[in-house]
Amino acid sequence: MPTINPDRLLRDLRELATFGAYKTGVHRPSLSAEDVAARHWFAERLSEAGLDARIDGIGNVIGYSRAQGPKMLIGSHIESQNYAGWLDGPLGIVYGLETARAFREDPAAAGLGVDVAAWFDEEGHFGSFLGSRSFVGLLSEEDIDRARNRYDNTPLREALERAGFAGRPRETVRPERYCGYFEAHIEQGDTLDSTGLKIGVVTAIVAIWQYRIIVEGEQNHAGTTSMARRRDAGLALVRLLSAIDRRFPELAGPRSVWTTGRITLDPGAPSIIPGRAEALFQFRDADTAVLERLHAELFRLVEEANTTGRCTLSVEVMSQSIPALMDEAFQQAIEAAAARHCPGRAMRMPSGAGHDAQYLARRMPAAMLFVPSIGGISHHWTENTSDEDIVLGCQVFCDAVAHALRARPPA
Amino acid sequence: MPTINPDRLLRDLRELATFGAYKTGVHRPSLSAEDVAARHWFAERLSEAGLDARIDGIGNVIGYSRAQGPKMLIGSHIESQNYAGWLDGPLGIVYGLETARAFREDPAAAGLGVDVAAWFDEEGHFGSFLGSRSFVGLLSEEDIDRARNRYDNTPLREALERAGFAGRPRETVRPERYCGYFEAHIEQGDTLDSTGLKIGVVTAIVAIWQYRIIVEGEQNHAGTTSMARRRDAGLALVRLLSAIDRRFPELAGPRSVWTTGRITLDPGAPSIIPGRAEALFQFRDADTAVLERLHAELFRLVEEANTTGRCTLSVEVMSQSIPALMDEAFQQAIEAAAARHCPGRAMRMPSGAGHDAQYLARRMPAAMLFVPSIGGISHHWTENTSDEDIVLGCQVFCDAVAHALRARPPA
Repeated sequence: MPTINPDRLLRDLRELATFGAYKTGVHRPSLSAEDVAARHWFAERLSEAGLDARIDGIGNVIGYSRAQGPKMLIGSHIESQNYAGWLDGPLGIVYGLETARAFREDPAAAGLGVDVAAWFDEEGHFGSFLGSRSFVGLLSEEDIDRARNRYDNTPLREALERAGFAGRPRETVRPERYCGYFEAHIEQGDTLDSTGLKIGVVTAIVAIWQYRIIVEGEQNHAGTTSMARRRDAGLALVRLLSAIDRRFPELAGPRSVWTTGRITLDPGAPSIIPGRAEALFQFRDADTAVLERLHAELFRLVEEANTTGRCTLSVEVMSQSIPALMDEAFQQAIEAAAARHCPGRAMRMPSGAGHDAQYLARRMPAAMLFVPSIGGISHHWTENTSDEDIVLGCQVFCDAVAHALRARPPA
Repeated sequence: MPTINPDRLLRDLRELATFGAYKTGVHRPSLSAEDVAARHWFAERLSEAGLDARIDGIGNVIGYSRAQGPKMLIGSHIESQNYAGWLDGPLGIVYGLETARAFREDPAAAGLGVDVAAWFDEEGHFGSFLGSRSFVGLLSEEDIDRARNRYDNTPLREALERAGFAGRPRETVRPERYCGYFEAHIEQGDTLDSTGLKIGVVTAIVAIWQYRIIVEGEQNHAGTTSMARRRDAGLALVRLLSAIDRRFPELAGPRSVWTTGRITLDPGAPSIIPGRAEALFQFRDADTAVLERLHAELFRLVEEANTTGRCTLSVEVMSQSIPALMDEAFQQAIEAAAARHCPGRAMRMPSGAGHDAQYLARRMPAAMLFVPSIGGISHHWTENTSDEDIVLGCQVFCDAVAHALRARPPA
């Protein structure tokens, strides 16, 4: 069995965290100077591990194995959310790097290979999942032309040019090369941490259905317009969100989540009745039947509000992704590996967050492994996982990849 | 009886509306070039009407009567809300101007005088009611030092300097000079328009009690944080506003109004559970007992939310004005004048909006007269009143001022 080197693993993770260090986390937005430097650093580590490493035209860092036998693709991302944690992304790519090294050092693994990728911009500074989408053929040149940094509006083309990546070819998947795809990640929730478990075996990456709710009322003076005469768009929105709050628990699955992330009242002044209101609303579930039930209820509640209220509500569907099911045999491989290293400490769970694996899963069998997040904290610089859990997770991951590679021929 | 000149009245209103004309309304923010020009134009009209006119150190335009007998102060404002109506403010000052001219032309009114004022910044571009507060002694030099334009942050001192008003003395009230204060205004609601009435006799200017509601929750990932574990500040706010929506109608008076003008969720991203939420909330009534009842209920609902929910809610009192009661004898004078010119077409009503009269009422008996707003539209460029109603309102106003002046000696 390939055996990982805990010190080397932790040293690399800590060194990577120096690129854009911020408090105990990192601030390393896609194609910032720190991010570009981190990509070069990671490509060098892949080369040192014996892989044929390159950075492609969209900023993906990929190391190709020179092994002759069946290969597994392992990936995650290297950039961070703004002022966020040190492990969200880096954990997965350094697990890939360490797995490659462990394979190389294990004579019993001769012939088995892993390719390791750090996908570009999973965190969405310029778009969404740009690197993994590019790799699986779901990102056009026009998509890249249009993409701009959501914070400072820099065109992606310009940022790629400045980074030195413009004009390079974009790597694309050769599915026949792989048995499948593995990705490790911190859980970002507290299920493992609060139950003392160590390994999450991801069953599916949930779908996210996103909506813009728009209410049209009548802007008017907050002092001179009687309550009876008002068409208060803000109040109509509050009533709808309150109805959702009452109804959704009756229709949701056990792991459904729904969130109103933004509310805007227009014009937003203390003494003016809002003439227009908007909300960004989303729900997530791994089960399409549940998603469809919640979708129907949202539209029913909006219709009810239009019938009974004095404002006009409408709903715009912004996106409806599809749940990405993880490969059953791979899940069993992770469970078997966990049983060898930490018996009774693994559980199956869906991923409530999106990951590059959801795009790779469209082209090959895919799997994800979670390690505990202390306190469930995510997208914040205090995000963390104990060294012990990081090391254990990597050994389980490496072991599972080895078994999965041996069990299945390339597609 | 002093008789107004309808053509002259309408001509002046139309000419004033050319300063900052916008569609059928005006855009004339306080101390904009158009506003400054309009103040000079108005001062000239006051001089032509035989008044001793000046623009003071805060931008108030005041014309003092040279009459020897009892005098009435008449005022309103000249600047507009952004891209708003042509009558909100101008109607009242041009009524004052026309009343002064009608008095001068009526031998029977010899010895009776009116002073006419266009108070600075009633619309609150730099503060709130700065001109009338200055006149009654409720605005300090430090208040002026601190005041800045709420849209572009220009210091008021700098804007006054640029307008040429800096360094001039500020006019202050000599209460012994006046019998009282009269102000005319468009209704800004649809009570008169929808019932076919022509004159609103204002009983009181309602008090406005304003609050900032703050909710502290826990910012977290909208995909990985279970519903049970969330502390969603936005949802807690929606639940509170929904409880207010259910409870306030049971406690409110017949003319109470309450409004949530702004809601902010922080950070306001589609996939992040809001960690903090804020709302600007206000209610208005002319009855202090009602105001206190609503205030107590707001705090009770917040306490209930803190007991039953998982977020921490607090309420900051931003302002609590006092209702300004209008003088009973003046109300009767307006009713009597209306009975002469449009019998059966006047009604008593409170003002839901704030007006300069609420500050003048602190130093002398005060009255307000409303004319109909077509469709109740206010603070919008489509705001309007028919020429016929404008003319009728002015004659009733002028007549009421004359009778009130004769009936009462100066304070």
